[in-house]
Amino acid sequence: MVAWQELRRSPVRHAEILCVGNELLFGDVVNTNAAYLSAKLTSMGIKVLHHTVVEDNPQALNIALNDAFSGERRPAVDLVVLTGGLGPTYDDLTKETVANFFGREMTLHQPSLDTIQAYFESTGRTMTPNNQKQAMMPVGAVVLPNHNGTAPGLAVGDEQHTAVLLPGPPFEMKPMFEESVQPLLQHFCNQVLVSHNIHLMGIGESDTEHRLRHLMSASNPSLAPYCGMGEVRLRVTAEAQDIPTAEAMCQTLISQVEASSVGEFIYGMDIPNPETALVERLKALGYTMGTAESCTGGLMGARITAISGASAVFMGGFMTYCNEVKIKTVNVNPDTIAAVTEVSHEVAKQMADGTRASLGCDVGISATGYAGPGGGTPENPVGTVYVGISTPKGTVSHRLYFPRKTRNYIREAVCNRAFLLALEMLRD
Amino acid sequence: MVAWQELRRSPVRHAEILCVGNELLFGDVVNTNAAYLSAKLTSMGIKVLHHTVVEDNPQALNIALNDAFSGERRPAVDLVVLTGGLGPTYDDLTKETVANFFGREMTLHQPSLDTIQAYFESTGRTMTPNNQKQAMMPVGAVVLPNHNGTAPGLAVGDEQHTAVLLPGPPFEMKPMFEESVQPLLQHFCNQVLVSHNIHLMGIGESDTEHRLRHLMSASNPSLAPYCGMGEVRLRVTAEAQDIPTAEAMCQTLISQVEASSVGEFIYGMDIPNPETALVERLKALGYTMGTAESCTGGLMGARITAISGASAVFMGGFMTYCNEVKIKTVNVNPDTIAAVTEVSHEVAKQMADGTRASLGCDVGISATGYAGPGGGTPENPVGTVYVGISTPKGTVSHRLYFPRKTRNYIREAVCNRAFLLALEMLRD
Repeated sequence: MVAWQELRRSPVRHAEILCVGNELLFGDVVNTNAAYLSAKLTSMGIKVLHHTVVEDNPQALNIALNDAFSGERRPAVDLVVLTGGLGPTYDDLTKETVANFFGREMTLHQPSLDTIQAYFESTGRTMTPNNQKQAMMPVGAVVLPNHNGTAPGLAVGDEQHTAVLLPGPPFEMKPMFEESVQPLLQHFCNQVLVSHNIHLMGIGESDTEHRLRHLMSASNPSLAPYCGMGEVRLRVTAEAQDIPTAEAMCQTLISQVEASSVGEFIYGMDIPNPETALVERLKALGYTMGTAESCTGGLMGARITAISGASAVFMGGFMTYCNEVKIKTVNVNPDTIAAVTEVSHEVAKQMADGTRASLGCDVGISATGYAGPGGGTPENPVGTVYVGISTPKGTVSHRLYFPRKTRNYIREAVCNRAFLLALEMLRD
Repeated sequence: MVAWQELRRSPVRHAEILCVGNELLFGDVVNTNAAYLSAKLTSMGIKVLHHTVVEDNPQALNIALNDAFSGERRPAVDLVVLTGGLGPTYDDLTKETVANFFGREMTLHQPSLDTIQAYFESTGRTMTPNNQKQAMMPVGAVVLPNHNGTAPGLAVGDEQHTAVLLPGPPFEMKPMFEESVQPLLQHFCNQVLVSHNIHLMGIGESDTEHRLRHLMSASNPSLAPYCGMGEVRLRVTAEAQDIPTAEAMCQTLISQVEASSVGEFIYGMDIPNPETALVERLKALGYTMGTAESCTGGLMGARITAISGASAVFMGGFMTYCNEVKIKTVNVNPDTIAAVTEVSHEVAKQMADGTRASLGCDVGISATGYAGPGGGTPENPVGTVYVGISTPKGTVSHRLYFPRKTRNYIREAVCNRAFLLALEMLRD
């Protein structure tokens, strides 16, 4: 086993994410690994300059490693994080290619072989001969254990260049990064990067940029606008030797944004997503909640229950996709549907009230509308959704309209807005 | 306006996806565009050799264009599809950089300016001066209209090299690709690529590969295994001059897989996702369905209603997150919960039966279990989920176990397996 001290001498400043896999180039799989790794490295003060996806072949991988490390084509990086190609199959050649790049032989790593054998025994599956390949390691590598699969990861390189090799499946890669790679890299980091997100509602991206242009030319701290679903985000980033200094640089810039003409559109800071903010607010208030969902069909509940610990506030809810179910489960009045249709302020409010009454919870949130591509009326075209919110303070409904958007966009955006509107109503 | 005939002379064979955006390198956004574009190009017989993400700056972009087109570093491509950097803000420089790469001046494209002005009028927002930048185009470009936002796309290049520039937001990029880019590229394609996916359940990736190794060495048609959530997929791909030839090559290989020792694990072919297969089966049978969801909290409903037209079969359902709601809405017996807990075969069956009874639908699907990270018992550790399925033929439940997986993985995998198990039960 090689210790981290033997891995490299110089600090890590710049990185590239290099993903290997034909399934990414075929478009069969979305590259969520690159986003995850970028966010993690960025938060450690390591600047990610490049993402690359190459075919599962040694030639392509070798060229990519050289382009990243050499500085011949573009600014060199001192860290390449690779994912994929560590599997047991014959076309998984990442490890061998990287070893060759750094002039290292491969050798059997007995502790990894023992772990792989134990893993197969514990799951009752049979170890095949090609799994043994996963225990072969370049000489001089730091081996990273895999607690969620059979392929160990590794870090290998020379004094200025480090390659970290991780398995492709995200449920193996992420725990390995957090358990082994992050602590390893922390030995080699001497800059920190602090970021904050300012969340705006009710103003467009170009209008925001137009009003804040005078603050956007600086590079450290920097300010950049992003267009989100139903919101605009301003990202504030500062790099410094320590967190307090970077934090102070961010806060100065944030104060300038707050004092500007976009200040009135700010609805929050550093909100990972609206459902997390809502669950935390409800916990603080000691409130429970439920949903009644027509066009979102369970998506509000699914997003809330994706948060571990949501059971403290989320009692349950109703997927009221057809009108009979709206009438039966959350007590919508059939006369109201006959008079104004189910896509209306009245039905949204009845659904929210009915959820509270039926479940005995404090807050009911509902959505009813046309997510498209079919449906819609002249008054309520596709993209029109009514959101109802019932709280101990009263019941309101909001008409949302997302013209010319996809079904998926409309449904996700409705959830975002419904959670934010409920949050707003539960303020103070 | 430039016609497609003026764009290039030679066929398009190899492509690179080049995404511009600091938000991708920060890890704020997952690069779904690259997967979408790869799948589309692959289906047109265009081989995607490389994905690249670079910073929003002209130097980095210029190097990337040169690396892709020149063939100096790696096999050259004849098409680069770029996304991002077409926005109205001052740091959106993709268009200008690509124009410069091909030695083209920028000129005002009046029809685009008219469209942008009309778009702002229709949404009631104010057009800012920087939106005018979006109507500037390289001389000789084919302009691609944007029906979902303000930034038009474009295609520009020389006889052998084409760059297609698309907006970054997926809800603008995807419709533009389908409406304008796909028809444009079809003029320049003379190979087709046909792919099929064979879906396996009950066998691991390495065991599959071990058994099929003799079929995996060929490159055309090719066979490659992928590890999915609760399944293994085998991708069969053939390239030929026309679809019937490529299709016949695929079918020969598929027959060999069917006749092999993995044949018994095949549960389907070319299933985009299990919910689509289930909705289609239910439609064919004239059946309706509903769900009762504890640990999935609405995710089954959300995934089913993500399918446009799901209303033909999906009546609704219950997010029975806490036990009171299980008892009240789907008639779970409190004595059963007291005797065997809510994570049990008995409660899963009662939930599925209660869904059918309460909604009056033909098929009820339920899930109850421990998605983690908290919870679990020695008999039913985290990762244990019971799925109940009630149909006119009877009611069954299945115990699923996903050890050492994340909350998100478990929830998604439970939906996959529940839909597949229901599908299996509705066969014949």
